[in-house]
Amino acid sequence: MKLEFMKEAIAIAKTSDKDIPIGAIIVKDGKIIAKAVNRREKNQNTVHHAEILAIEKANKKLKNWRLNGCEMYVTLEPCPMCASAILQARIDKLYFGTPDLLNGAFGSKSDMRIIMGYDIEVKGGILEQECSSILNNYFEGLRNA
Amino acid sequence: MKLEFMKEAIAIAKTSDKDIPIGAIIVKDGKIIAKAVNRREKNQNTVHHAEILAIEKANKKLKNWRLNGCEMYVTLEPCPMCASAILQARIDKLYFGTPDLLNGAFGSKSDMRIIMGYDIEVKGGILEQECSSILNNYFEGLRNA
Repeated sequence: MKLEFMKEAIAIAKTSDKDIPIGAIIVKDGKIIAKAVNRREKNQNTVHHAEILAIEKANKKLKNWRLNGCEMYVTLEPCPMCASAILQARIDKLYFGTPDLLNGAFGSKSDMRIIMGYDIEVKGGILEQECSSILNNYFEGLRNA
Repeated sequence: MKLEFMKEAIAIAKTSDKDIPIGAIIVKDGKIIAKAVNRREKNQNTVHHAEILAIEKANKKLKNWRLNGCEMYVTLEPCPMCASAILQARIDKLYFGTPDLLNGAFGSKSDMRIIMGYDIEVKGGILEQECSSILNNYFEGLRNA
Protein backbone atom coordinates (compact mmCIF):
# COMPACT_ATOMS: atom_id res chain seq x y z
CA MET A 1 0.00 0.00 0.00
CA LYS A 2 1.35 3.39 -0.98
CA LEU A 3 -0.24 6.63 0.22
CA GLU A 4 0.77 8.36 -3.01
CA PHE A 5 -1.73 6.17 -4.89
CA MET A 6 -4.59 7.15 -2.59
CA LYS A 7 -3.52 10.77 -3.10
CA GLU A 8 -3.95 10.23 -6.84
CA ALA A 9 -7.42 8.79 -6.25
CA ILE A 10 -8.27 11.85 -4.14
CA ALA A 11 -6.95 14.18 -6.85
CA ILE A 12 -9.14 12.57 -9.50
CA ALA A 13 -12.16 12.52 -7.16
CA LYS A 14 -11.90 16.31 -7.02
CA THR A 15 -12.51 16.54 -10.78
CA SER A 16 -16.06 15.14 -10.48
CA ASP A 17 -17.86 18.40 -11.29
CA LYS A 18 -21.55 17.79 -10.41
CA ASP A 19 -21.15 14.10 -9.62
CA ILE A 20 -20.51 12.80 -6.11
CA PRO A 21 -16.70 13.07 -5.84
CA ILE A 22 -15.36 9.53 -5.78
CA GLY A 23 -12.08 8.59 -7.44
CA ALA A 24 -10.51 5.22 -8.24
CA ILE A 25 -7.18 4.16 -9.64
CA ILE A 26 -5.77 0.78 -10.60
CA VAL A 27 -2.10 -0.06 -10.11
CA LYS A 28 -0.12 -2.89 -11.68
CA ASP A 29 3.59 -3.58 -11.04
CA GLY A 30 3.84 -0.32 -9.11
CA LYS A 31 2.41 1.80 -11.94
CA ILE A 32 -0.97 3.44 -12.38
CA ILE A 33 -2.73 1.85 -15.37
CA ALA A 34 -6.20 3.42 -14.97
CA LYS A 35 -7.76 6.45 -13.28
CA ALA A 36 -11.45 7.31 -13.14
CA VAL A 37 -13.96 9.54 -11.41
CA ASN A 38 -17.66 8.95 -10.80
CA ARG A 39 -19.56 10.06 -13.93
CA ARG A 40 -23.07 8.75 -13.29
CA GLU A 41 -24.76 12.14 -13.59
CA LYS A 42 -22.53 13.62 -16.26
CA ASN A 43 -22.81 10.55 -18.50
CA GLN A 44 -26.37 9.70 -17.39
CA ASN A 45 -25.19 6.11 -17.06
CA THR A 46 -26.32 3.93 -14.13
CA VAL A 47 -23.06 2.00 -13.91
CA HIS A 48 -20.50 4.77 -14.44
CA HIS A 49 -19.21 4.70 -10.88
CA ALA A 50 -15.48 5.43 -10.58
CA GLU A 51 -14.59 1.78 -9.88
CA ILE A 52 -16.45 0.44 -12.94
CA LEU A 53 -14.88 3.04 -15.24
CA ALA A 54 -11.41 2.28 -13.83
CA ILE A 55 -11.94 -1.47 -14.37
CA GLU A 56 -13.03 -0.87 -17.98
CA LYS A 57 -9.97 1.31 -18.65
CA ALA A 58 -7.68 -1.34 -17.16
CA ASN A 59 -9.42 -4.05 -19.24
CA LYS A 60 -8.69 -2.03 -22.35
CA LYS A 61 -5.09 -1.38 -21.39
CA LEU A 62 -4.34 -5.03 -20.56
CA LYS A 63 -6.68 -6.39 -23.27
CA ASN A 64 -8.06 -8.71 -20.61
CA TRP A 65 -11.24 -8.86 -18.53
CA ARG A 66 -9.21 -10.49 -15.75
CA LEU A 67 -7.16 -8.03 -13.70
CA ASN A 68 -5.07 -10.49 -11.70
CA GLY A 69 -2.03 -8.80 -10.18
CA CYS A 70 -3.79 -5.43 -9.99
CA GLU A 71 -4.59 -3.28 -6.95
CA MET A 72 -7.38 -0.72 -6.68
CA TYR A 73 -7.33 2.44 -4.58
CA VAL A 74 -10.73 4.13 -4.16
CA THR A 75 -11.73 7.05 -1.96
CA LEU A 76 -15.02 5.48 -0.74
CA GLU A 77 -15.87 1.90 0.19
CA PRO A 78 -17.45 0.34 -2.94
CA CYS A 79 -21.20 -0.32 -3.29
CA PRO A 80 -22.38 -3.91 -3.95
CA MET A 81 -22.30 -3.43 -7.75
CA CYS A 82 -18.70 -2.20 -7.74
CA ALA A 83 -17.61 -4.70 -5.09
CA SER A 84 -18.95 -7.55 -7.25
CA ALA A 85 -17.19 -6.13 -10.31
CA ILE A 86 -13.89 -5.85 -8.36
CA LEU A 87 -14.20 -9.49 -7.25
CA GLN A 88 -15.19 -10.71 -10.72
CA ALA A 89 -12.21 -8.82 -12.19
CA ARG A 90 -9.91 -10.84 -9.88
CA ILE A 91 -8.30 -7.65 -8.56
CA ASP A 92 -5.78 -8.76 -5.91
CA LYS A 93 -5.98 -5.99 -3.35
CA LEU A 94 -8.37 -3.19 -2.56
CA TYR A 95 -7.57 -0.10 -0.52
CA PHE A 96 -10.39 2.30 0.29
CA GLY A 97 -10.61 5.62 2.11
CA THR A 98 -13.92 6.25 3.85
CA PRO A 99 -16.14 3.40 5.02
CA ASP A 100 -19.71 3.71 3.68
CA LEU A 101 -22.12 2.72 6.42
CA LEU A 102 -25.15 2.96 4.10
CA ASN A 103 -23.94 1.00 1.07
CA GLY A 104 -20.40 -0.23 1.70
CA ALA A 105 -20.02 -3.80 0.48
CA PHE A 106 -16.66 -4.71 1.99
CA GLY A 107 -17.80 -5.02 5.57
CA SER A 108 -19.74 -1.88 6.51
CA LYS A 109 -23.24 -2.71 5.25
CA SER A 110 -22.63 -6.05 3.54
CA ASP A 111 -19.64 -8.15 2.53
CA MET A 112 -19.60 -9.28 -1.08
CA ARG A 113 -16.60 -11.51 -0.37
CA ILE A 114 -18.81 -13.71 1.79
CA ILE A 115 -21.80 -13.49 -0.59
CA MET A 116 -19.74 -14.36 -3.68
CA GLY A 117 -17.26 -16.69 -2.02
CA TYR A 118 -14.18 -14.88 -3.37
CA ASP A 119 -11.51 -13.65 -0.99
CA ILE A 120 -9.30 -10.66 -1.65
CA GLU A 121 -7.18 -8.48 0.59
CA VAL A 122 -9.08 -5.35 1.61
CA LYS A 123 -7.91 -2.49 3.79
CA GLY A 124 -10.12 0.52 4.56
CA GLY A 125 -9.48 3.82 6.30
CA ILE A 126 -6.57 4.91 4.09
CA LEU A 127 -6.32 8.74 4.34
CA GLU A 128 -9.86 8.50 5.66
CA GLN A 129 -10.17 12.07 6.88
CA GLU A 130 -9.08 13.54 3.55
CA CYS A 131 -11.35 11.17 1.59
CA SER A 132 -14.40 11.94 3.72
CA SER A 133 -13.79 15.70 3.71
CA ILE A 134 -14.18 15.76 -0.10
CA LEU A 135 -17.60 14.14 0.29
CA ASN A 136 -18.60 16.37 3.20
CA ASN A 137 -17.67 19.50 1.24
CA TYR A 138 -19.69 18.28 -1.73
CA PHE A 139 -22.84 17.57 0.29
CA GLU A 140 -22.44 20.82 2.24
CA GLY A 141 -22.24 22.65 -1.08
CA LEU A 142 -25.50 20.99 -2.20
CA ARG A 143 -27.27 21.99 1.03
CA ASN A 144 -26.14 25.60 0.63
CA ALA A 145 -26.91 25.83 -3.08
CA MET B 1 -45.21 -10.24 -18.38
CA LYS B 2 -45.24 -11.20 -22.02
CA LEU B 3 -43.64 -14.40 -23.24
CA GLU B 4 -42.77 -12.75 -26.56
CA PHE B 5 -40.27 -10.53 -24.71
CA MET B 6 -38.52 -13.53 -23.15
CA LYS B 7 -38.43 -15.08 -26.62
CA GLU B 8 -36.60 -11.96 -27.82
CA ALA B 9 -34.12 -12.34 -24.94
CA ILE B 10 -33.59 -15.98 -25.93
CA ALA B 11 -33.07 -15.00 -29.58
CA ILE B 12 -30.37 -12.48 -28.68
CA ALA B 13 -28.73 -14.92 -26.22
CA LYS B 14 -28.18 -17.25 -29.19
CA THR B 15 -26.00 -14.62 -30.90
CA SER B 16 -23.32 -14.81 -28.16
CA ASP B 17 -20.68 -16.54 -30.28
CA LYS B 18 -17.94 -17.66 -27.83
CA ASP B 19 -19.45 -15.98 -24.80
CA ILE B 20 -21.79 -17.75 -22.39
CA PRO B 21 -25.19 -17.28 -24.08
CA ILE B 22 -27.18 -14.90 -21.91
CA GLY B 23 -29.55 -12.32 -23.38
CA ALA B 24 -31.33 -9.35 -21.84
CA ILE B 25 -33.90 -6.90 -23.10
CA ILE B 26 -35.48 -3.81 -21.57
CA VAL B 27 -39.08 -2.87 -22.25
CA LYS B 28 -40.80 0.47 -21.66
CA ASP B 29 -44.47 1.22 -22.40
CA GLY B 30 -44.77 -2.18 -24.10
CA LYS B 31 -41.86 -1.58 -26.48
CA ILE B 32 -38.34 -2.98 -26.49
CA ILE B 33 -35.87 -0.11 -25.96
CA ALA B 34 -32.66 -2.14 -25.49
CA LYS B 35 -31.33 -5.60 -26.35
CA ALA B 36 -27.96 -7.04 -25.36
CA VAL B 37 -26.00 -10.26 -25.19
CA ASN B 38 -23.14 -11.20 -22.87
CA ARG B 39 -19.90 -9.89 -24.41
CA ARG B 40 -17.36 -10.37 -21.60
CA GLU B 41 -15.02 -12.54 -23.62
CA LYS B 42 -15.50 -10.88 -26.99
CA ASN B 43 -14.99 -7.38 -25.59
CA GLN B 44 -12.53 -8.52 -22.87
CA ASN B 45 -14.50 -6.36 -20.46
CA THR B 46 -15.24 -7.55 -16.90
CA VAL B 47 -18.61 -5.83 -16.71
CA HIS B 48 -20.01 -6.52 -20.18
CA HIS B 49 -22.69 -8.92 -18.98
CA ALA B 50 -25.94 -8.77 -21.00
CA GLU B 51 -27.81 -6.93 -18.23
CA ILE B 52 -25.18 -4.17 -17.87
CA LEU B 53 -25.00 -3.63 -21.63
CA ALA B 54 -28.81 -3.48 -21.85
CA ILE B 55 -28.95 -0.94 -19.00
CA GLU B 56 -26.32 1.22 -20.72
CA LYS B 57 -28.23 1.12 -24.01
CA ALA B 58 -31.48 2.08 -22.24
CA ASN B 59 -29.66 4.92 -20.41
CA LYS B 60 -28.53 6.25 -23.76
CA LYS B 61 -31.96 5.93 -25.33
CA LEU B 62 -33.76 7.64 -22.45
CA LYS B 63 -30.85 10.02 -21.70
CA ASN B 64 -31.30 9.06 -18.05
CA TRP B 65 -29.42 6.86 -15.60
CA ARG B 66 -32.75 6.14 -13.89
CA LEU B 67 -34.88 3.55 -15.66
CA ASN B 68 -38.14 3.94 -13.72
CA GLY B 69 -41.06 2.43 -15.60
CA CYS B 70 -38.85 -0.13 -17.35
CA GLU B 71 -38.95 -3.93 -17.21
CA MET B 72 -36.07 -6.29 -17.85
CA TYR B 73 -36.30 -9.79 -19.30
CA VAL B 74 -33.12 -11.87 -18.95
CA THR B 75 -32.53 -15.53 -19.72
CA LEU B 76 -30.51 -16.28 -16.54
CA GLU B 77 -30.95 -15.02 -12.97
CA PRO B 78 -28.59 -12.04 -12.60
CA CYS B 79 -25.29 -12.20 -10.66
CA PRO B 80 -24.76 -9.81 -7.71
CA MET B 81 -23.11 -7.15 -9.92
CA CYS B 82 -26.00 -7.10 -12.40
CA ALA B 83 -28.63 -7.39 -9.67
CA SER B 84 -27.16 -4.33 -7.94
CA ALA B 85 -27.10 -2.43 -11.24
CA ILE B 86 -30.76 -3.36 -11.92
CA LEU B 87 -31.77 -2.12 -8.47
CA GLN B 88 -29.70 1.07 -8.76
CA ALA B 89 -31.27 1.74 -12.18
CA ARG B 90 -34.73 1.69 -10.51
CA ILE B 91 -35.99 -0.88 -13.03
CA ASP B 92 -39.58 -1.70 -11.97
CA LYS B 93 -39.87 -5.37 -12.81
CA LEU B 94 -37.50 -8.20 -13.57
CA TYR B 95 -38.38 -11.44 -15.31
CA PHE B 96 -35.72 -14.12 -15.58
CA GLY B 97 -35.57 -17.56 -17.15
CA THR B 98 -33.27 -20.02 -15.41
CA PRO B 99 -32.44 -19.70 -11.71
CA ASP B 100 -28.67 -19.65 -11.06
CA LEU B 101 -27.94 -21.71 -7.97
CA LEU B 102 -24.24 -20.73 -7.99
CA ASN B 103 -24.44 -16.97 -8.43
CA GLY B 104 -28.09 -15.92 -8.69
CA ALA B 105 -28.69 -12.76 -6.69
CA PHE B 106 -32.49 -12.63 -6.69
CA GLY B 107 -33.07 -15.46 -4.27
CA SER B 108 -31.09 -18.49 -5.42
CA LYS B 109 -27.66 -17.80 -3.88
CA SER B 110 -28.20 -14.35 -2.38
CA ASP B 111 -30.86 -11.66 -2.54
CA MET B 112 -29.61 -8.20 -3.39
CA ARG B 113 -33.05 -6.73 -2.61
CA ILE B 114 -32.50 -7.58 1.05
CA ILE B 115 -28.83 -6.53 1.01
CA MET B 116 -29.50 -3.18 -0.67
CA GLY B 117 -32.89 -2.52 0.85
CA TYR B 118 -34.64 -1.87 -2.48
CA ASP B 119 -37.70 -3.86 -3.44
CA ILE B 120 -38.72 -4.64 -7.00
CA GLU B 121 -41.06 -7.20 -8.51
CA VAL B 122 -39.12 -10.27 -9.61
CA LYS B 123 -40.44 -13.40 -11.27
CA GLY B 124 -38.17 -16.29 -12.29
CA GLY B 125 -38.75 -19.47 -14.25
CA ILE B 126 -40.12 -17.76 -17.39
CA LEU B 127 -39.60 -20.19 -20.33
CA GLU B 128 -37.11 -21.84 -18.01
CA GLN B 129 -36.56 -25.01 -20.04
CA GLU B 130 -35.79 -23.08 -23.22
CA CYS B 131 -33.48 -20.67 -21.37
CA SER B 132 -31.54 -23.44 -19.65
CA SER B 133 -31.23 -25.55 -22.80
CA ILE B 134 -29.25 -22.74 -24.51
CA LEU B 135 -26.79 -22.83 -21.62
CA ASN B 136 -26.64 -26.63 -21.52
CA ASN B 137 -25.94 -26.78 -25.26
CA TYR B 138 -23.16 -24.22 -24.86
CA PHE B 139 -21.40 -26.05 -22.03
CA GLU B 140 -21.86 -29.41 -23.75
CA GLY B 141 -20.22 -27.91 -26.84
CA LEU B 142 -17.26 -26.77 -24.71
CA ARG B 143 -16.83 -30.25 -23.20
CA ASN B 144 -16.85 -31.86 -26.64
CA ALA B 145 -14.54 -29.28 -28.23
